[in-house]
Amino acid sequence: MPEGIITLTTDFGTKDHYAGAVKGVILGINPGAVIVDITHEIEDYGIMEAAFRLTAFYSYFPRGTVHVVVVDPGVGGERKALALEAEGYFFVGPDNGVFSMIYEKNPDAVVYEITNPDFMLPEVSRTFHGRDIFAPAAAHISTGVEPGQMGDIVTSPVRLQMPTPKQTAEGIIGEVVYSDSFGNLVTNIEGALLRKDSRIYFGDTFIGGLSSAYSDAAPGEILALVGSSGFLEISISHASAARDLKNPKSEVKVIS
Amino acid sequence: MPEGIITLTTDFGTKDHYAGAVKGVILGINPGAVIVDITHEIEDYGIMEAAFRLTAFYSYFPRGTVHVVVVDPGVGGERKALALEAEGYFFVGPDNGVFSMIYEKNPDAVVYEITNPDFMLPEVSRTFHGRDIFAPAAAHISTGVEPGQMGDIVTSPVRLQMPTPKQTAEGIIGEVVYSDSFGNLVTNIEGALLRKDSRIYFGDTFIGGLSSAYSDAAPGEILALVGSSGFLEISISHASAARDLKNPKSEVKVIS
Amino acid sequence: MPEGIITLTTDFGTKDHYAGAVKGVILGINPGAVIVDITHEIEDYGIMEAAFRLTAFYSYFPRGTVHVVVVDPGVGGERKALALEAEGYFFVGPDNGVFSMIYEKNPDAVVYEITNPDFMLPEVSRTFHGRDIFAPAAAHISTGVEPGQMGDIVTSPVRLQMPTPKQTAEGIIGEVVYSDSFGNLVTNIEGALLRKDSRIYFGDTFIGGLSSAYSDAAPGEILALVGSSGFLEISISHASAARDLKNPKSEVKVIS
Repeated sequence: MPEGIITLTTDFGTKDHYAGAVKGVILGINPGAVIVDITHEIEDYGIMEAAFRLTAFYSYFPRGTVHVVVVDPGVGGERKALALEAEGYFFVGPDNGVFSMIYEKNPDAVVYEITNPDFMLPEVSRTFHGRDIFAPAAAHISTGVEPGQMGDIVTSPVRLQMPTPKQTAEGIIGEVVYSDSFGNLVTNIEGALLRKDSRIYFGDTFIGGLSSAYSDAAPGEILALVGSSGFLEISISHASAARDLKNPKSEVKVIS
Repeated sequence: MPEGIITLTTDFGTKDHYAGAVKGVILGINPGAVIVDITHEIEDYGIMEAAFRLTAFYSYFPRGTVHVVVVDPGVGGERKALALEAEGYFFVGPDNGVFSMIYEKNPDAVVYEITNPDFMLPEVSRTFHGRDIFAPAAAHISTGVEPGQMGDIVTSPVRLQMPTPKQTAEGIIGEVVYSDSFGNLVTNIEGALLRKDSRIYFGDTFIGGLSSAYSDAAPGEILALVGSSGFLEISISHASAARDLKNPKSEVKVIS
Repeated sequence: MPEGIITLTTDFGTKDHYAGAVKGVILGINPGAVIVDITHEIEDYGIMEAAFRLTAFYSYFPRGTVHVVVVDPGVGGERKALALEAEGYFFVGPDNGVFSMIYEKNPDAVVYEITNPDFMLPEVSRTFHGRDIFAPAAAHISTGVEPGQMGDIVTSPVRLQMPTPKQTAEGIIGEVVYSDSFGNLVTNIEGALLRKDSRIYFGDTFIGGLSSAYSDAAPGEILALVGSSGFLEISISHASAARDLKNPKSEVKVIS
């Protein structure tokens, strides 16, 4: 059962009043909603980034939380608006792949298209579905409306070709998916793929073994560890790998 | 009746603890308040920008919401502190014109000066009225105190000379009021002034007719549409008009 | 008694989902918690800055508020995790000096190490104690758990050598501790040390006497006043002292 918690992950930026309008719409429908900003600084059109970040926080919320993701370059075009439930969480956002990793973990999740105007604002623009469609849908779900009441089943929602690490004879080859604001380079190599004796290369640089904390290395030293999101990260202790490394988009190689 | 929702629109930035102090004061007076950040990144001294943005979000909130606007270069000087009700919403902020567009839409709204120390912090600084006057006033209003209890009527609150579009023989001449973080250039030409056959010029550039969604143009193409705030916007599909156009402050001309 | 209010002061930045994950953990333990972002833009490793800012906002919140400070370059290393009560407020964060000014004002405050796994996430990483230790500890305190239940007393928590102004024959010599986003230079000289006839120097520049509001000076003029945080500030009216002064880190001298 929803507890009224709604999270927002968007590329709206923090300068504008757009996230504010979204919150107004939510509170108009569910005055008891607890709205949590995750970030409004997903890179413009950063569908892949949003998909990865979502997996890093959604399950830390209590079940029943509604996670809204609005990274939506195709707003006003043909793309569908979606609502689904998976693992006791609800997800609301555009059909452009932002939920790809949720589908992958939950192959049985049923995805619905939001078409029922009862769960939209009376007037729907073609420029701001975050406010006119996704916000009201999320607010209604947070009061107990089921995604299945919102429209028909979508049998083939859009899935991104997610960058998955390659198993080669030499080892695992992965790549950097995004960097965080500390400058840590987050890769697509899940922690479960690593072993205690793994040796890690970043491009031509041999990093060494796996560290378990940023403070395991001396300031300025490069290190590799499984970060808080569960993926392998390339970091520089007390500095920014994204800024200080020559090729922050280099290939990552793990040899076990 | 207030429901305890209070929005904040300021130029405090997000780096400092100032908005935090404001929230502490509000929660000390109304522990049940629901505080919503609209933005803390109004440009320094951006009274006009705040006035425009306010009209784009205030009515998306449920009636009874208290909208606090603190863009206040004259803090500690002669300018008055104001509270008013209009359309079932409450507004709290400095008397410097931030509510100009609210007055225009509500010529009968009664504006009060906040002078009653019962609704201020015990100690009022001359540097931070957001915390010492506006936050407590808003919190008290959110519990049911009426603006009329806070002080005398202000008969001539400050009104900005808002930039209004000119009707000429040739057509409507407007201007860019602010740009959003997607780089869309938001003009002062209301959507209601436009017709299906309107042709739009941005400076010397002929844009063409009115689009209805950002995705109506190919990536990189310039387009004009009525944006989510109800005003004409000049945009570049999948890019930033503010960054990529040579003269992002050009005149906008609409010929119908 | 806690009222469920929890504030967050971190160096996480606003771009990432890290503060979001912290909030999810808090709401999972206390669904009624009211979470207030103070700032997530403390400078990286800005322990001193966080310590100073904390004193500028904590007491504006109602008693019972839990203040969480996560500026934590030593995460995963030897440093302890702390919880304490002082003046009816609760403080949760790393043992690296962020609470130095709280200790100074409350020499009798008893500080506890958080070691009881009942008040942590089931799985504790070595990279994100904000989410795995500080968030759950704060959430439990907000429901009435006492810091003393979390672990043993820490007799000598880390204290920063705070920059204190020097009393010299000539006057008081202080320094700039941080600048705010308006460009005001906030010094370590408390307002109580100043007198009406104080004359203030910033480096070689004679500023004059003490102003009481930013609007007391003409636009572009330098001025000195006791800012909203209670400390002497060097400002430029309607401009940024941090950007426009040649040596924004100059010594500040007060002669009375």
